[in-house]
Amino acid sequence: MFSAKQIIDKKREGLALSTTEIREFMSYYMTGEVPDYQMSALAMAICCRGMTERETADLTEAMRCSGEAVWEFDPKRGDEPLPGLPCPAALVADKHSTGGVGDKLSLIIQPLAAACGLYVPSLTGRGLGLTGGTADKLETIPGYVAGVSLDRFRAIVAETGVSMAMQTPEICPADKRLYALRDVTGTVASIPLITASILSKKFAEGAPTLVFDVKCGLGAFMHTRDEARALASSLVGSTKASGRKSLALVTDMDAPLGRTVGNANEVEEALDILENKASGPSLPAAALCIEFAAAMVSLAKDIGRGEAREMCKARLADGSALAKFKAMVAAHGGDLDEFRRTRREAKMHRFRISAMRSGYVTGIDAKKVAQISLRLGAGRQVQTDTIDPHAGVDFAVARGDRVAVGAPLATLFTSTVPDALEECAAELLSAFTIAPAAFTPPPLVIEEVG
Amino acid sequence: MFSAKQIIDKKREGLALSTTEIREFMSYYMTGEVPDYQMSALAMAICCRGMTERETADLTEAMRCSGEAVWEFDPKRGDEPLPGLPCPAALVADKHSTGGVGDKLSLIIQPLAAACGLYVPSLTGRGLGLTGGTADKLETIPGYVAGVSLDRFRAIVAETGVSMAMQTPEICPADKRLYALRDVTGTVASIPLITASILSKKFAEGAPTLVFDVKCGLGAFMHTRDEARALASSLVGSTKASGRKSLALVTDMDAPLGRTVGNANEVEEALDILENKASGPSLPAAALCIEFAAAMVSLAKDIGRGEAREMCKARLADGSALAKFKAMVAAHGGDLDEFRRTRREAKMHRFRISAMRSGYVTGIDAKKVAQISLRLGAGRQVQTDTIDPHAGVDFAVARGDRVAVGAPLATLFTSTVPDALEECAAELLSAFTIAPAAFTPPPLVIEEVG
Repeated sequence: MFSAKQIIDKKREGLALSTTEIREFMSYYMTGEVPDYQMSALAMAICCRGMTERETADLTEAMRCSGEAVWEFDPKRGDEPLPGLPCPAALVADKHSTGGVGDKLSLIIQPLAAACGLYVPSLTGRGLGLTGGTADKLETIPGYVAGVSLDRFRAIVAETGVSMAMQTPEICPADKRLYALRDVTGTVASIPLITASILSKKFAEGAPTLVFDVKCGLGAFMHTRDEARALASSLVGSTKASGRKSLALVTDMDAPLGRTVGNANEVEEALDILENKASGPSLPAAALCIEFAAAMVSLAKDIGRGEAREMCKARLADGSALAKFKAMVAAHGGDLDEFRRTRREAKMHRFRISAMRSGYVTGIDAKKVAQISLRLGAGRQVQTDTIDPHAGVDFAVARGDRVAVGAPLATLFTSTVPDALEECAAELLSAFTIAPAAFTPPPLVIEEVG
Repeated sequence: MFSAKQIIDKKREGLALSTTEIREFMSYYMTGEVPDYQMSALAMAICCRGMTERETADLTEAMRCSGEAVWEFDPKRGDEPLPGLPCPAALVADKHSTGGVGDKLSLIIQPLAAACGLYVPSLTGRGLGLTGGTADKLETIPGYVAGVSLDRFRAIVAETGVSMAMQTPEICPADKRLYALRDVTGTVASIPLITASILSKKFAEGAPTLVFDVKCGLGAFMHTRDEARALASSLVGSTKASGRKSLALVTDMDAPLGRTVGNANEVEEALDILENKASGPSLPAAALCIEFAAAMVSLAKDIGRGEAREMCKARLADGSALAKFKAMVAAHGGDLDEFRRTRREAKMHRFRISAMRSGYVTGIDAKKVAQISLRLGAGRQVQTDTIDPHAGVDFAVARGDRVAVGAPLATLFTSTVPDALEECAAELLSAFTIAPAAFTPPPLVIEEVG
């Protein structure tokens, strides 16, 4: 007979829960028979005692099953196409990022993978706190509707090869409910719970290949390499245990990624990369996009990474990735010409900061940048906040660049808090470390977990 | 600013909470601003990460302060009498037991301590599950009202030197609420939480001396000596840290304590001991009563343990302890003559079990006995169950006794489940271990923590 208390007792004592125990606990949590105070106690016991890979996979499955799937993944079906898709099942893939500062990589990677022949059903979310959301960025394109129905989402993937849409309420309601509870009960910091939360939503997409970008550093959820590696191993291990192909790259998030932090400015930077106009601070971000797309293509097509990388470079260079991005934006109702016009005409308060000394940029504190960006209006403190689409920071330099006194470092934009602009500028200046000796920035890919 | 989440985070990370954090958390829990799901998460974090002695003392004080006190303990007041009591404050003392099978010792120890000149305000409770409750036992005496007001309780202590009454709703409401939550969230098993729960109620009595009986073994909450020692140390350490005197005896609870397990039969056994008619299996229980009363007297009167022990023996032998018991029963409205009559006239189904082999009794599984006693009607499965006052088990032998085939071992009594009597009898027989070699039972006092 089901006893929530006995299950909590078992986990508190550090024992592994059975598949049935995990499934029943989550199922009764969704019906309300297990109240929040039992769920939060179990979540805390999981934080303190951990979970095995098998338990994590069971929790993932229990949460995935709480709602609908975009497509059902079934390893036994072989390469039979997913309903409505004009390709073998194996060619369906997605990439997930744990979230970083200036992380607009999905806007490039997903279309690029589609340009290489993959089908990419990518459910995404809005930003909260220091983390930006891909849906928020896309919605700065006038007309772009990220909140489409699951049927429309499936259709866009089938038509254009790629769709980036808001996770719908039918997807993993258990995750939504549990996450809200974890958020207020000090139970967010748990590798198994984070893993199950991420994977339940990604598994609901139905893709047989999942690649993970586990951000690590000052501007990431995982601050240390050990933590990031542990999460990467957990994500990849549980994904493989489900019969899917998987790979994770642990990537640097000490400094912001690319030239821009905000929303519309990040879309603009993504367009630059897709149009092969990337320069300066955008170049390392563009290179990282190639790595992720190559990982997806290599796994999904079962070809070597080198071959996949060449294919990705070619598809970026020949404009196919840009074409996929444009097709996706159009399918979601977005108007890129109108986007360009709003960017040109946006009346923003701005403030440029310059180097106070000469030397080499050795660090740009990503967390400070995220806090400033939030304050400028580019993010949400609470879910109901609205975003200032053109607010944010554009960088003139990246780590490793040599600067002279007075050289421009970055420009801040805001329409909502002009009074605080100078304070934010001073804070942004303090995010830069400039030292006399030449400095080679660390590679963005710290390690690969596969 | 108060943040429940930050406090939970801190404890999850294994850090010690400040006095203010603990006080505010409990205070907001009582006002409802901290919901159950945050309280249960913190309780689980405490289960997993522990608490320092200082944190435990703070939690105890936060819970005690949630309600009224019988008397306020104030070490700075010296020996000024407590309001309404005709004795120096130092002579007020109580004993607490963590609960055992056949544990009627309070019925003897508290009156005996009173007979030695102490004043004993002893708040007690009802039984639930495998644990019997002193209030239930006393209420088998016709007329005995355990649920008196705090004022009446104070008056009975002042008049007779001893009162055993139900804890009132004014005492530690935070403990009541937290315990109910812990009970359903797998967060009972925590030394600091158990300590704070016990001490908050005992501290509310106002006594400067508290002695603890920490039961250890098959029939106790603490199964191992290490667990029992840890709880004893925590209870004594936190009590001393509050400026009170304290001592704990870790005592054996592998086998039932004394001759009887039930309710009215335990009162009868207590009367036998108080009337110096104890024999057979009651003798070790009687000796243990002397030890506990002596510990209370020694600490409260600041005299040697040997002297205190002699005083207790004398007060038991000369009938003063019995007189105190009778005075207390009368003050609570109880009628001992009527009690004797109901005992004689109770129409009970009974079943006597006998030894199937000859040898020495080496064990009587206290947990099995408790389960049988519960099934016979002597306890409650849920709080609303009513108790069959005369149900229970009387033992003819104790550990170490030699028995021949066919010799009586015990008798089971029930009025509520006659159909199950034979099953219970068979189960009770299986609780006995009889072996060929002579066996000396271990001493009841395993160790002293002071």
